[in-house]
Amino acid sequence: MISRNIRIVLVGPTHPGNIGAAARAMKNMSLDRLFLVQPKIYPSAEATARASGADDLLAACRVCDTLDEAIDGCSLVAATTARVRALRWPQYTPREAGERIVTHARQAEVAVLFGREHSGLTNEELDRCQWMINIPSNPAFSSLNLGAAVQVICYEILSATPAQAFVDTADEFTPFATAEEIEHYYRHLETVLARLDFLDPANPRHLMRRLRRLYNRAQLDRNETNILRGILTAIERKIT
Amino acid sequence: MISRNIRIVLVGPTHPGNIGAAARAMKNMSLDRLFLVQPKIYPSAEATARASGADDLLAACRVCDTLDEAIDGCSLVAATTARVRALRWPQYTPREAGERIVTHARQAEVAVLFGREHSGLTNEELDRCQWMINIPSNPAFSSLNLGAAVQVICYEILSATPAQAFVDTADEFTPFATAEEIEHYYRHLETVLARLDFLDPANPRHLMRRLRRLYNRAQLDRNETNILRGILTAIERKIT
Repeated sequence: MISRNIRIVLVGPTHPGNIGAAARAMKNMSLDRLFLVQPKIYPSAEATARASGADDLLAACRVCDTLDEAIDGCSLVAATTARVRALRWPQYTPREAGERIVTHARQAEVAVLFGREHSGLTNEELDRCQWMINIPSNPAFSSLNLGAAVQVICYEILSATPAQAFVDTADEFTPFATAEEIEHYYRHLETVLARLDFLDPANPRHLMRRLRRLYNRAQLDRNETNILRGILTAIERKIT
Repeated sequence: MISRNIRIVLVGPTHPGNIGAAARAMKNMSLDRLFLVQPKIYPSAEATARASGADDLLAACRVCDTLDEAIDGCSLVAATTARVRALRWPQYTPREAGERIVTHARQAEVAVLFGREHSGLTNEELDRCQWMINIPSNPAFSSLNLGAAVQVICYEILSATPAQAFVDTADEFTPFATAEEIEHYYRHLETVLARLDFLDPANPRHLMRRLRRLYNRAQLDRNETNILRGILTAIERKIT
């Protein structure tokens, strides 16, 4: 399984609330391997509170003394940054990174690093990375909350993960109306509009074209077509 | 400017920390129009602390008594949800939604709704929406933190925004109907359907909900709304 090969590594996090938020974001996005390198305060009730049901991830997380220990066994190490760093490292968007991480994780282990809230990652830590992930942001206010940054990256990892992770939307839908059913509706509508004296006798097609455009856009299903025709029949019964 | 036309609407947020986190996420992603509908606790020191430098957004945010007030003037209203709803609203991924929101915001105003932390949005609130944004998630743990959900959506909006996002040259287009105009149409429609004896007196909301969903999907423009109301008036003239 791809998620087994992906670890999220928080380097030197200061606020335990952010550790909890990161755990929740990971679990929401179907990831579960959290590593902490020298967290300032951990464990902590605040982390548990913010994890809000992802406390199993916290319980299973690995607290490491060194970055080396946290990335041991990984053949791809990427780092997240809001700033564009000069030179050396290839830079990818979260979307590109999500695809690369998932591709790599089919075969081997990946670590995604997130730096300290205020000071980020040191140059020595960045030296361990193959490339950087640049989260697009407001140039005047570019520093994301740590939990929010983890959320964006994990979202792109899940989005790049083949379908089995996604919610299945194919349930209990009413079938779309067929072209024929819709045509019957339009003919019925035209008849009723004529009886209401609402069609312009000089150019009856014009109004019908507009109405067709409107309903075609909505992509009617069978129930809806039946309701609309029911309304037309109710009008016919009432008009003199 | 596109961002001017995009508002983030938090409906009934319970935790002030989440309001602050949402403000920070928005500002990081270059959005700045925050609306709060009946926040439980606001203003609050906790919101300001979590906004962490985005307190200008909090200071400028609009606190509203009703959802109507918060979406006033918007011709596209989308809602974020972690669950796939059984009924048929169109569902988009955050990525698709980001593109649609940015496209719409070139011409007209957009509101993106986020529901209450525990109970989400009511059916009546969802009735105001054209479509839903489904954040992909772990089926066993699908409820994102409110601030995290705002982060993902704003990230996709920024990712979909062209680098120099300024006014499109005057294109000829009929303006979309505003939320208020559409609401007038629905009220008129309900009145006429009652006069036609077409509404089920035991459950009049059920039919209206289906019809709202149909027309919301079509994203009515102002001409179309006028035509539809014209038809209702023609019916009223003819029925005995």
